[in-house]
Amino acid sequence: MNSLKQRILSAVKNDLLQIEKELAANLNPHLELVKQVAGHLLFAGGKRLRPLLMVLAAKTCGYEEPSVYRYSTIFEYLHAATLLHDDLVDGGSIRRGQPAAHTVWDAPTAVLTGDFLLARSLSIAAGAGIPAMIDVMANITENMSQGEIQQLHNRGSLDMTETEYYTVIERKTAVLFQGACRSGALIAGADRNCQQALARYGYHLGMAFQMADDLLDYTQTEQNTGKLPGADLREGKLTLPVIAALSQAGEADYQVMRRIVSSSGFSEQDFRTLIEYLHNCGGIDYTRQKAGEHVNMAKEALHTLNTAPAVTIMEDIADYALARKI
Amino acid sequence: MNSLKQRILSAVKNDLLQIEKELAANLNPHLELVKQVAGHLLFAGGKRLRPLLMVLAAKTCGYEEPSVYRYSTIFEYLHAATLLHDDLVDGGSIRRGQPAAHTVWDAPTAVLTGDFLLARSLSIAAGAGIPAMIDVMANITENMSQGEIQQLHNRGSLDMTETEYYTVIERKTAVLFQGACRSGALIAGADRNCQQALARYGYHLGMAFQMADDLLDYTQTEQNTGKLPGADLREGKLTLPVIAALSQAGEADYQVMRRIVSSSGFSEQDFRTLIEYLHNCGGIDYTRQKAGEHVNMAKEALHTLNTAPAVTIMEDIADYALARKI
Repeated sequence: MNSLKQRILSAVKNDLLQIEKELAANLNPHLELVKQVAGHLLFAGGKRLRPLLMVLAAKTCGYEEPSVYRYSTIFEYLHAATLLHDDLVDGGSIRRGQPAAHTVWDAPTAVLTGDFLLARSLSIAAGAGIPAMIDVMANITENMSQGEIQQLHNRGSLDMTETEYYTVIERKTAVLFQGACRSGALIAGADRNCQQALARYGYHLGMAFQMADDLLDYTQTEQNTGKLPGADLREGKLTLPVIAALSQAGEADYQVMRRIVSSSGFSEQDFRTLIEYLHNCGGIDYTRQKAGEHVNMAKEALHTLNTAPAVTIMEDIADYALARKI
Repeated sequence: MNSLKQRILSAVKNDLLQIEKELAANLNPHLELVKQVAGHLLFAGGKRLRPLLMVLAAKTCGYEEPSVYRYSTIFEYLHAATLLHDDLVDGGSIRRGQPAAHTVWDAPTAVLTGDFLLARSLSIAAGAGIPAMIDVMANITENMSQGEIQQLHNRGSLDMTETEYYTVIERKTAVLFQGACRSGALIAGADRNCQQALARYGYHLGMAFQMADDLLDYTQTEQNTGKLPGADLREGKLTLPVIAALSQAGEADYQVMRRIVSSSGFSEQDFRTLIEYLHNCGGIDYTRQKAGEHVNMAKEALHTLNTAPAVTIMEDIADYALARKI
């Protein structure tokens, strides 16, 4: 474990414990089955980054009430709800190192449990009694569903542009990170400047985080990430490493990559070849550079804030978003 | 068209026009595909009963602002969202006389469009700035998802009790009707008594409406309802006409019904036989009687209110819930 990760984990150890407790306490289903299906995904060891961001954002604004942990679960339940639907949509079979819920139970159960988790997050948000937090949730859910639909219908297309890619990851990831951070400011009753700074931090962190995720799909092993490498491509999803490599490649390199990328059942050898080309044609470097720009913008957004210890942790998290191996 | 229906339709003609306008105006998707998929279901001629109930409830409380039409769309979008997910869960292939969305497009598109419609309804509700309305929505969505899961996992079971049936229809139908009526009172700023009376009306109307729906599946033709008769049974759903008939039948009759009900691929002749038995063993009458009790309780709930014209229409709607042929 590298020292950056160690430093973050030791600083947020108690926060993560509290979040974990609240995730179990607030699930609150009427039915045992819902508990099992939701729990299968929820308690398979996620990073809890989204609830943690809300907690840290609230602390940054001086809010130390323990109720923040309860409200922070909103963003993990919401995240889990979208994972349940997305795995089904993408045909993903492994999640957090375990078989995806729709393969353990069935597709209908996964759809309805996702709906339940979304409803649960809405209930908890309603309990906060802050109308602006409901606006945040509405914005997140509208963006996420449309981002996924857009990704679904770009599936298998080689024509996806860099701009279209940014729109997709903004909707499917950055808006949720942004909402978690903004909600931390809202629960703390922070002023508008503070709200906007934290929202900006969350947005850029989310962009960097998703780009790093898309990089890991070409640079890491299944052992590390709990996902099969190349999963995106197998699901017909073009991400920035490929989009950038294709657009920067000469004709010959382009044709080699195009052949691999457009065949749905590429071999392991094909995949290794593609990775080489992504490196040689600059797709990996370009993605890392763009993610790095968002890391910097996230950290810059924090500069207008005070120097609370939570701000230092949030800076570390921004660095870690790109440095991580998992 | 019978005269009760005629009377209702002529009294709410303008309301329905306004609701229809707002449904088109507020859909507001970023993507053309979402518009098509959502529109396929939304504009295939639903009864618009849920938004209409909100409008009438608001009028009962003296609220005449045109913004009520915008807010009323919440309940049609929410309803459409659950139909998209439920048709997928149930494998239903026809909806409102048209092929279901998941058969025209695909399952993932139907799931995500449902998510979008839910998000849309949340956005509009957030815009009302009434926290209690968000509580209503959270309650509806939690109940509906769990009601569907419960129904899914009772599928094919002959052991479903009358009480379990009531729990399912309460969650999947009555809570939404109740929420639409309560929201009408909330938007009007009505007092607690008025809120509760309207919520009680909505609840009992919803129970009666769903029982009548479950009756129609055994008493009407596809031409009338736009759905294949016997669809519930084909999807493995036991409803009150069957539950009551099974529990009241003698051993010989029980065995005949049991054979038909437990075979997934029953013939048309089998289905006609079953309907005869449902009549002879009292399943149809019992369901009609129970639905009638809820119609009466719905109307009784209105007695504490004033004598606004909207109240008369709501009484007619309660009668029509059971009298209708479609």
